[in-house]
Amino acid sequence: MSKPRIAITMGDPAGVGPEVCLQLLANPEIREFATPIVFGDAKLLQRCATQTGLSSPDHIITEGDWEDSFSSIDQPCVLDLKHFDDERFEPGKVNSKTGAAGYHYVIKSIDAALAGQIHAVATGPLNKEALRAADIRFPGHTEIFAEKTGAKRSCMFQYSEEVRASFVTVHVGYRDVPALLKKDRIVDVIELTAEAMQKIRGTKPKIAVLGLNPHAGESGLFGNREEENIIIPAIEMARKEGIEVEGPLPPDTAFLPEKRRSTDAFICMYHDQGHIPLKALAFDTAVNTTLGLPIIRTSVDHGTACDIAWQGKAKGSSLVEAVRLAAKLAGS
Amino acid sequence: MSKPRIAITMGDPAGVGPEVCLQLLANPEIREFATPIVFGDAKLLQRCATQTGLSSPDHIITEGDWEDSFSSIDQPCVLDLKHFDDERFEPGKVNSKTGAAGYHYVIKSIDAALAGQIHAVATGPLNKEALRAADIRFPGHTEIFAEKTGAKRSCMFQYSEEVRASFVTVHVGYRDVPALLKKDRIVDVIELTAEAMQKIRGTKPKIAVLGLNPHAGESGLFGNREEENIIIPAIEMARKEGIEVEGPLPPDTAFLPEKRRSTDAFICMYHDQGHIPLKALAFDTAVNTTLGLPIIRTSVDHGTACDIAWQGKAKGSSLVEAVRLAAKLAGS
Repeated sequence: MSKPRIAITMGDPAGVGPEVCLQLLANPEIREFATPIVFGDAKLLQRCATQTGLSSPDHIITEGDWEDSFSSIDQPCVLDLKHFDDERFEPGKVNSKTGAAGYHYVIKSIDAALAGQIHAVATGPLNKEALRAADIRFPGHTEIFAEKTGAKRSCMFQYSEEVRASFVTVHVGYRDVPALLKKDRIVDVIELTAEAMQKIRGTKPKIAVLGLNPHAGESGLFGNREEENIIIPAIEMARKEGIEVEGPLPPDTAFLPEKRRSTDAFICMYHDQGHIPLKALAFDTAVNTTLGLPIIRTSVDHGTACDIAWQGKAKGSSLVEAVRLAAKLAGS
Repeated sequence: MSKPRIAITMGDPAGVGPEVCLQLLANPEIREFATPIVFGDAKLLQRCATQTGLSSPDHIITEGDWEDSFSSIDQPCVLDLKHFDDERFEPGKVNSKTGAAGYHYVIKSIDAALAGQIHAVATGPLNKEALRAADIRFPGHTEIFAEKTGAKRSCMFQYSEEVRASFVTVHVGYRDVPALLKKDRIVDVIELTAEAMQKIRGTKPKIAVLGLNPHAGESGLFGNREEENIIIPAIEMARKEGIEVEGPLPPDTAFLPEKRRSTDAFICMYHDQGHIPLKALAFDTAVNTTLGLPIIRTSVDHGTACDIAWQGKAKGSSLVEAVRLAAKLAGS
């Protein structure tokens, strides 16, 4: 197989997505393992290049030419979706139009992936407020990909060399987590994660499941015995399937250095349980991916960062890692 | 002032407390800034020394001699409370008797501190299950010290060079946190933390308050607007008092390296929100302390670690740091 074609969605135009895409297109390292195709707006990328001092994209393909030419693309390029071209556009300020544009790029990339025109998607950052302003009722990429690809089960997975974690729940309020913890859902997340780590590392993975409560409930001392009633039965079921899995671990000691090294992936019950250590330990290199989809999808691990958008300050390393993992999962 | 006398409670006899106390007594560095006095059982320490190959304590004081001699103590020693001497005692197995013993050492140290006989207390690890088996209805040290010293308000504070955090709630189940978040409680924790950091660092501290929900609720998108209704009003009140405080920060990005360096202390809403990054980043050196008490109290940042107890494997660095911070807070 030649190098995989990887769609890079440009993200919300008002955020740092455009400039990290420009950095990626100019990065010679990427060409060694993938052919990146930015799904976005060419005019906007050119304007962003002028403002930030980055190189303008060399190769631009129109939607009209796409069908006939996608299979022969062998260099970094932009698929110009001509969706967003507002003259009054202000970088750093998200609104309903930038939200709708970011969403449009994602939908187009999913269509291309489902049609087999590209081998994987790596997504730039969307802004949840802008999505909501645009009346798009998805809290984030994970949910968009799950619904649009008709995935029966899926989960968010964060990958870095330092630590890796999957999530039983993600973009829900603190209070809403306990009601969403179900044995079958936890088993699904364990299975999807074990399968992905087997693919990435080529060896039988060691999985660790975290508790929900402080000290994993300390034998029922804290909480409503979520560990005994839900999490332990899920672990036992996964073990019966032959998965090497331990837990529930006390969440605070799960991420000690020695434990991180001996564990291929942690199963987290809620967003901040895993995102706090991931960002503290591997901010610039963590990659977000959605497991369980019929297509491969990875993502940067940062948001739109509107406070520094279009200023040439954003670091593109997370997108590079996202493309690297996408290529690995695509069998590069 | 001469070096402060610091009571070190031996912790649950079945855990790693006795051996980290033995390490401390033999540590020449400690003598430069404090006079440690282990509140515990001398026979048990001797037995632990034999089993682990550590040095037996040189100086032992009986309770009968204490009143007349405490003020002239100038070298590391053991105050022999002769409380626990069970022949059938099994290291690594906590039970009601070891729980009661650990509690007894703590109560004795609080009495000595309130009587002005010692300048601070640094506590070894207790075991919550053993406390409960002994019918002691405190979930941990923080709560024992708060009640026994009659403190009107107090909070747990974790100190390390890498990161520092205070806690609005601590040893409660995941589900019980939201109902415990009150504006006045958050203001208390901000005030106590700012005061402690001013004392430790000698400069006006920068405090950061975390949100409860993922992304700090992202403007009401997740959760029940706990940020808008409770946390933001608390921050505004603390600011009116002249405290330099920001937030609510998205919990996952709060602990990025740059943010850690520019923030003197983080105010966390629940146990794992702060304990996960603290343990991931500063496991061996973090010190736990209770702010707001009429006496000074610090603690090791680890539990009884029964799986490695009495095997000579435990690291004593956290207790050394606890004594160091206690000495600093005592004005050494």
